[in-house]
Amino acid sequence: MVPTSSSESPLPSTEGTFGERLSAAVRRCRNPVCVGLDPRFESLPAPLRAGRDAGSTVDRAAAFAEFSCRVIDAVRDLVPIVKPQAAFFEALGPAGMQALADVLAHARQAGLETILDGKRNDIGSTAEAYADAWIGRRGSAWGSDSLTVSPYLGDDTLLPFVRAAEARSGGIFVLVKTSNPGSAALQDRTTTVDGRAVLIRELVAQWVEGHAARTAGPSGYGDVGAVVGATYPRELAELRRAMPHAWLLVPGYGAQGGGADDVAAGFDDRGLGAIVNNSRGILFAHAAPEYRERVTEAGWIDAVRMATEAMIAALRERTTVGRL
Amino acid sequence: MVPTSSSESPLPSTEGTFGERLSAAVRRCRNPVCVGLDPRFESLPAPLRAGRDAGSTVDRAAAFAEFSCRVIDAVRDLVPIVKPQAAFFEALGPAGMQALADVLAHARQAGLETILDGKRNDIGSTAEAYADAWIGRRGSAWGSDSLTVSPYLGDDTLLPFVRAAEARSGGIFVLVKTSNPGSAALQDRTTTVDGRAVLIRELVAQWVEGHAARTAGPSGYGDVGAVVGATYPRELAELRRAMPHAWLLVPGYGAQGGGADDVAAGFDDRGLGAIVNNSRGILFAHAAPEYRERVTEAGWIDAVRMATEAMIAALRERTTVGRL
Repeated sequence: MVPTSSSESPLPSTEGTFGERLSAAVRRCRNPVCVGLDPRFESLPAPLRAGRDAGSTVDRAAAFAEFSCRVIDAVRDLVPIVKPQAAFFEALGPAGMQALADVLAHARQAGLETILDGKRNDIGSTAEAYADAWIGRRGSAWGSDSLTVSPYLGDDTLLPFVRAAEARSGGIFVLVKTSNPGSAALQDRTTTVDGRAVLIRELVAQWVEGHAARTAGPSGYGDVGAVVGATYPRELAELRRAMPHAWLLVPGYGAQGGGADDVAAGFDDRGLGAIVNNSRGILFAHAAPEYRERVTEAGWIDAVRMATEAMIAALRERTTVGRL
Repeated sequence: MVPTSSSESPLPSTEGTFGERLSAAVRRCRNPVCVGLDPRFESLPAPLRAGRDAGSTVDRAAAFAEFSCRVIDAVRDLVPIVKPQAAFFEALGPAGMQALADVLAHARQAGLETILDGKRNDIGSTAEAYADAWIGRRGSAWGSDSLTVSPYLGDDTLLPFVRAAEARSGGIFVLVKTSNPGSAALQDRTTTVDGRAVLIRELVAQWVEGHAARTAGPSGYGDVGAVVGATYPRELAELRRAMPHAWLLVPGYGAQGGGADDVAAGFDDRGLGAIVNNSRGILFAHAAPEYRERVTEAGWIDAVRMATEAMIAALRERTTVGRL
C-alpha cells in the first residue's frame, strides 16, 4: 500500500529508541492523537455487521479485523500511533487473537507506532514471557511496539519489561493514575516513604521516572511512560512535573468526558510529552449527533476521519500542541 | 476418555457456584493441589522437543499443547484444579493462543476446575470484555472457570468480574500479596482508612472479603478469592484471618521456595480454604535431582506424577489437609 500522507513524508523509520521514534512521529504528524482500537460488535456500522452472525466468534473477529484495518487506513496520514485494546479481541477467543495479530500487522505496514493495551504483569520469568509477546515490533511474537503494564506486583516486576524495551527498541506505559471513578481507592492513598508522605500514584511515578530518565534520548523522553487519565486534570499536571522524562499516555478523552483543556497540562512547552487516546469518540463517530446528520452509516469512515481531525484541531488550538 | 480416579468418584458436576465446586473438588481429591501449566520450550523433556523447531512458534505451540495435555492426563485423578499461565502461551502469538484454548478444553473434558492466570483488569466495559473472555466454563469465550485479577485500578473495576462470576458460575482470584521479593514495594505500604492504619494488601483484602462473604455457599467460601504467596507465611496467616470467606490461591510452592509448613496457615480446620499451586516443581520434575535418578527423560510423565503425589503427601502430613 502506498502511504497517503499529505505532508509527503517518507514512511517513518523503525530505527532508534521507542521514546525517540514517538517524538519524531508526533512532530511529523504535528499532533499527539492515539486512536484506540476498541471494537464492539453491536456498535459497528451496519455495513460491517451485515451478513455476519453476531453469535459467531469467527464472524465477529472478521468484522473486528476489517473495521480496525479500515480505521487504520483512514487515520494513517493523520496520527502517529494506534492502541488496540486486548480485551475486546480476547473476548472472541482464538479467532479474536488472530484478528488482533492481523490488525497489529496492518498498523505496522501503515507506518504507525502501536501500543498493545493489555495492562499485563507478573513475576520474574513470567513477566519476561509477556515482554517477549508484546514489546518491540522486531523480535516480539505479536510485533507491537509497546505495552501497558500494571504496577501492583512491585517495582521488581517492571524490570523484565524495561529490559525488553531497551533490547528491542520498544516501550511500556505503566498505570499510574487511571481514568475511572474508583481509581482513587488505591492510587490516591497516602503512604510514607523515608519519613515523607507520598501518594501511591506518586510512588509509582517515581519508579517510572527513574527508568524514563535513564533511557531518555535527545528529545528528552525515554522508553518507559505512564498512563494518566484525562479525567483528572489536576493530577495530570502534578504527574507531568513528577515524570519529566516519561511519555504520558492519556486516556479518557471524548466518551469518558475529558476535553482539550483537560489534557493541556500533559504537554511540555514544545507540545511533546503526551499522547492522547480517543477510542469510542473516533471509532463510533457515525452514531454521534454531530456527525449523524452529515454522514450515512455507509459513510462511517468519513465520520472517523472528521472526528480525528476535530480532535487534532481542538488540541492544536487549546494546548501547546499548536507549536509542533 | 474414562476417568481413572482411584476413588471411583463420578466426573465432577459443573453445577453450583465456583466456590462450592472448588470445595467439592478439594474434598473429593482430598488435597488442594493446583498444577500450574507454565510450559517453557527449553525445559520440556527431550521427546517433546524432538523434531520440533525451537524457532517456530507453531512448533513450540504444538509442543506446549501436547505437553500440557499429557500433564493433565497424568494428574487428573489426583488433583482438583489446574492453572494455565497466559503469558507463556501469549509469547507464541496466535498459535500459542490456539494451544491455550486446546489445553483449557482438555482440562474441562478431564473434569478439572481451571484458573486462567492472566492478572487482567481494566475499566468499565473493557473489564466486562475480559470477564466475557475468561470467566465461566459455559458462556465465556475460552471456557475457563476463573481468572486472576489485578486490583491497582480500584475496587470499582472488580465489579464486572464479580458480576460475571455470579452470572456464569465462575470465579476470580484478586492479587493481594504476591510471592515475588518486590511485592512489599506497594502491597506492604501503610495507609490510613477512616483514621486507622491499614496496609495496602489489607485494603485489597477487605474488598475481596466483602464479595467473598456475599457469595459464600454452604461450605463457607465464595466465588471471589485472593492470591497470597507461599513465600510470606506470616502474611498468609494474617490474610487467612482477614478473608475468612475467600478461597486463597497460594503460589510460590516448590521452585520459589515455599514448602508445606509455609502454606499451613492458609487452610481452615477442615483442610479447606486454600489451593496451593506448583508449576515448575511438577512440570519439570524429570530434571530435578530426586527424580532424575529414578526416571529417564522418556519417562518424564512418571516424574510429574511422583512430584504431585509427594506434594500431596507433604500437605496431608503437615497441614489440616490431612483431615479432608
